[in-house]
Amino acid sequence: MSHPVTQPARAAGPDRAPAFQRVAIVGLGLIGGSIALATRAAFPHARVIAVDNQDVLDNAMRVNAIDEAADDLAVLGDADLIILAAPVRQNLDILRRLETYVRQPAVITDTSSTKRAIVAAARALPEHLTFIGGHPLGGAAAGGIDHAHPDLFRGRPWLFTPDGDAHQEALERLVAFTRSIGADPRTLDAELHDRLLAFLSHLPQLTASALMAAVGAAVGDAGLALAGRGLVDTTRLASSPADMWSDIAATNADEMGPALDALIEILQQLRGDLAEGHRLREIFAEAGRWRAVLVDRPPV
Amino acid sequence: MSHPVTQPARAAGPDRAPAFQRVAIVGLGLIGGSIALATRAAFPHARVIAVDNQDVLDNAMRVNAIDEAADDLAVLGDADLIILAAPVRQNLDILRRLETYVRQPAVITDTSSTKRAIVAAARALPEHLTFIGGHPLGGAAAGGIDHAHPDLFRGRPWLFTPDGDAHQEALERLVAFTRSIGADPRTLDAELHDRLLAFLSHLPQLTASALMAAVGAAVGDAGLALAGRGLVDTTRLASSPADMWSDIAATNADEMGPALDALIEILQQLRGDLAEGHRLREIFAEAGRWRAVLVDRPPV
Repeated sequence: MSHPVTQPARAAGPDRAPAFQRVAIVGLGLIGGSIALATRAAFPHARVIAVDNQDVLDNAMRVNAIDEAADDLAVLGDADLIILAAPVRQNLDILRRLETYVRQPAVITDTSSTKRAIVAAARALPEHLTFIGGHPLGGAAAGGIDHAHPDLFRGRPWLFTPDGDAHQEALERLVAFTRSIGADPRTLDAELHDRLLAFLSHLPQLTASALMAAVGAAVGDAGLALAGRGLVDTTRLASSPADMWSDIAATNADEMGPALDALIEILQQLRGDLAEGHRLREIFAEAGRWRAVLVDRPPV
Repeated sequence: MSHPVTQPARAAGPDRAPAFQRVAIVGLGLIGGSIALATRAAFPHARVIAVDNQDVLDNAMRVNAIDEAADDLAVLGDADLIILAAPVRQNLDILRRLETYVRQPAVITDTSSTKRAIVAAARALPEHLTFIGGHPLGGAAAGGIDHAHPDLFRGRPWLFTPDGDAHQEALERLVAFTRSIGADPRTLDAELHDRLLAFLSHLPQLTASALMAAVGAAVGDAGLALAGRGLVDTTRLASSPADMWSDIAATNADEMGPALDALIEILQQLRGDLAEGHRLREIFAEAGRWRAVLVDRPPV
């Protein structure tokens, strides 16, 4: 792929894209918490409503990230924008129950790392609930609301995966919203999203966790004391939460499987030629070229 | 392994460990260049002699890292400490030719990432050349003398792999030397060194290169534009030089093979259970525990 894989999201005037007044966020982790903080900064007159466990909500109220907290979805009945920011299978579950709670028109989006499953599930929503799948690519070295930051999305892609041409107005309002909190909204198909992210995000995560498990089991605590920066950087992702990642794997298994196969194939080629190193030289040359593209990549 | 895998190196008084007067370094990359700078800082009266290609030497003279430069090993005849800091198979080749150039007594060490091959080769050295294998664990995000730094080894382990109890005085002098440039000298067997480093250093390197090659081939330039911090950190090592790493693989293939097997086995377990995720949860839990040990590890 040498042409861009995303399209810049279309801008819209204020007539087409009135700002949201009541923004409800379900799940106040790193992403949901950062959206709350960014929304309060960009839209001081909007009301920010959050749903999570009580201890997370207490924390969010204490740092003044939200206006209203609830551990019950009934509070969503009041929102004109609902952002599902829990692990993807929880988002799917909440999406299916939304019409019980939300009777007035509302725009729904999510922040899940996989998009096909939730885009498909959203086709069953009633007319007054308008869903556009979303995936902000902001990220940080550590998760949880304690690491949330209003600038987490600044300059970073926020991918939307519209389901055909339906719901253009909702998309334009979401584009205006995410641009207001500093992100660079882009659109692409849910299918392409899941295939790309299987390699760009899901494979590095599984690799880091597998590497850390293999090394730890082999060398133990005392051996790890001799580790250098290489192992530390390569395994940074290995502290990621299993809950979130088992949801991602369950909803993208058909794309993650071939991605794992591609990596295992290269590792086996290296393994079969360690003493001679012909294949090692080729793979290091390819990897070096891609790494140069990665660190010197143009804006999305 | 829960007991320490290295022993702190024994200190020695100045009678046993007279400082080196003429330090020759063969190979002025990140490690050799940093040793040169650190030696000049710690031993202003010592003479630092370097052997490398002419352009590297010109660079080193310009930044005042060395006193004397040569692209010919004849210059080693003058040194009382010779440090081989080229890729390991070049170090092996030079070691075998040393007696042609060095007639007076000298202590020889190296900085190679594998130790069994060079320790075995050193058994053929004549009496007046005393070899102790070494491996400084300093490292930086980028290689080459342009990134060399006199503090590269400060507080970092410098592993020595003495061949039995021979050459105690040479070891004590090297311990005093490396301690003077800020390192924490430790000793362990060459066999254990190569087994541990296969997991701690060589496996992360092969993994990062294989991952970068797999991802780049699948998503291309345009796909990489969407990559986030996870892929960037996990593949940091992927720009490492193939020359150095084909030498490491050639001299540690028997330990790196089983390390690759252990990683491939875990990746295959993940691959076989993506939709259910039972094994994923177990592996993420193990990886999370080892990662916590790694980032919170005690001093070596």
